[in-house]
Amino acid sequence: VITALSGGVGASKFLAGLVRVVPASDVTAVVNTADDMVLHGLSISPDLDTVMYRLAGRDNPETGWGLAGESWTVMGALGALGGASWFALGDKDLATHLYRTQRLSEGAGLAQVTAELFAAHGVAIRALPMSEDAVRTRLTPAEPAEVAALVPELAGKELAFQEYFVRLHHAVAVTSLRYAGATDARPGPGVIEALHDAAALVVCPSNPLLSIGPIVAIREIAELLAARREDVVAVSPLVAGAAIKGPADHLMAELGHESSALGVARLYAPWAATMVIDEADAACARDIESVGMRCVVAPTVMHDVTAATHLARVVLDAGH
Amino acid sequence: VITALSGGVGASKFLAGLVRVVPASDVTAVVNTADDMVLHGLSISPDLDTVMYRLAGRDNPETGWGLAGESWTVMGALGALGGASWFALGDKDLATHLYRTQRLSEGAGLAQVTAELFAAHGVAIRALPMSEDAVRTRLTPAEPAEVAALVPELAGKELAFQEYFVRLHHAVAVTSLRYAGATDARPGPGVIEALHDAAALVVCPSNPLLSIGPIVAIREIAELLAARREDVVAVSPLVAGAAIKGPADHLMAELGHESSALGVARLYAPWAATMVIDEADAACARDIESVGMRCVVAPTVMHDVTAATHLARVVLDAGH
Repeated sequence: VITALSGGVGASKFLAGLVRVVPASDVTAVVNTADDMVLHGLSISPDLDTVMYRLAGRDNPETGWGLAGESWTVMGALGALGGASWFALGDKDLATHLYRTQRLSEGAGLAQVTAELFAAHGVAIRALPMSEDAVRTRLTPAEPAEVAALVPELAGKELAFQEYFVRLHHAVAVTSLRYAGATDARPGPGVIEALHDAAALVVCPSNPLLSIGPIVAIREIAELLAARREDVVAVSPLVAGAAIKGPADHLMAELGHESSALGVARLYAPWAATMVIDEADAACARDIESVGMRCVVAPTVMHDVTAATHLARVVLDAGH
Repeated sequence: VITALSGGVGASKFLAGLVRVVPASDVTAVVNTADDMVLHGLSISPDLDTVMYRLAGRDNPETGWGLAGESWTVMGALGALGGASWFALGDKDLATHLYRTQRLSEGAGLAQVTAELFAAHGVAIRALPMSEDAVRTRLTPAEPAEVAALVPELAGKELAFQEYFVRLHHAVAVTSLRYAGATDARPGPGVIEALHDAAALVVCPSNPLLSIGPIVAIREIAELLAARREDVVAVSPLVAGAAIKGPADHLMAELGHESSALGVARLYAPWAATMVIDEADAACARDIESVGMRCVVAPTVMHDVTAATHLARVVLDAGH
């Protein structure tokens, strides 16, 4: 059994490759929930859904989020009412959020609801919310004026994750980031067992600060990873200092980390023994070893599922 | 200014006629909110929306609820997930509930949100929720076996209104009904002023127990109506002992009331001086007068907006 720490887009691509190497039923993903939010009363779990939709083969390859063949009737009508339409929710995608919200209101936990949704989508991997307690990434912008120019009503506020990521298009610099609630959060049901029992532990190529950071901010998870450090293989999401998608690169720099595979290695070294970096970063290998990690160089850019499958093989081999 | 107590379908038809007799801006509707519910995390106010959609000319004349030209993408996808799809929410209708829920979560009151929604729909009458406190109609079925045969999971439970009305198609007999929360509920913002200041007070042809009952279960509203009893004109929703739509007739009988215009009159007599009944019930006029009400006989079946307009004129004339 393989347990993988997972964010959204990058992780879902990697997992789609992984399930071509090992049976999907042998894969457990511990998924970031610090991007979750309640909007329009609906409980939205973006990373869980991104993983689910891609592994169901229903993801939208053009946007990187949401469902293929989506329609936008509800959002169109909401916009006509003057409602908040900055977070685009397609009609079919909305059904997922309605389902989740209703089941949560009936008393089901997020892990249970996630299992139901994955089963309904025919996805055989096990996806575990990192926590059922609310952990929420919050960011402080560097320049209030920069925020004000984009969305006046957000000026001067600490930003909720999706305000930063979607509403401001992660286009503003930030000076700090925190995972509100992480200190008291417990791992979600099954998470500790999945990390404890796994033959291999993988860190998907996800944003180190926004996706992996919240997961390891949960004390029990960090402790267990540190105890199993030798078995943890991480994939750098940064290639030649740049993120394939999203703000990982400039966010790393803004928050005082080197925006490179080495910068990622410094973050992961306390609890991961092996790092897989891209061929473009081969020159970093020596530096990464100097922070105490083994380093494997391989093609890591997942242009398609074949490339993702190859990367998954590299990662599994690196763990042995 | 005319203030009307309003349920959903029947009231909305009447109000559509009323705004052909007087300017819409002179009409205030105090609308039942005891049918409201939260489903899928969404705050749904069926009577407010039925009034809004009809006065916007956007109602679906075939169903009597929801919007014309509606699509069902979200519900279809929710059904495919195995979600609760017994309460049909069209895609465009959902936008109303998303808007309402988000604004309520931002701290706006239901009266404020209702004003925003009516304005967005271009509806000029003022609609006031009877209360912003939760008043919820609950019904106790007579025969648990009857419920179990239709929806096993509802067997043995007191029913929430929409479970009775929609999920069980108001097809089961009940032994009792209560308006949970009504004792402590305050009238919604503007309600007391609207009742106090109105030149005419009208009770729309709505279900006496399910729509008008909850409104007058709020003590301050009942007291004010009683004080203005001479000015209150009510329209019987029962014609020849039958409801035009919905369960008013059998519900009246099940709960010990005569299922007739006379039965309605007995309920309204403490706080309404005048009753408009249908020509089919002309023989009841004497009996209605015997319970202390003036009685006006007129065509009350609103086949179309012309008939509704005529009925509105009759009602306004009856108030003088």
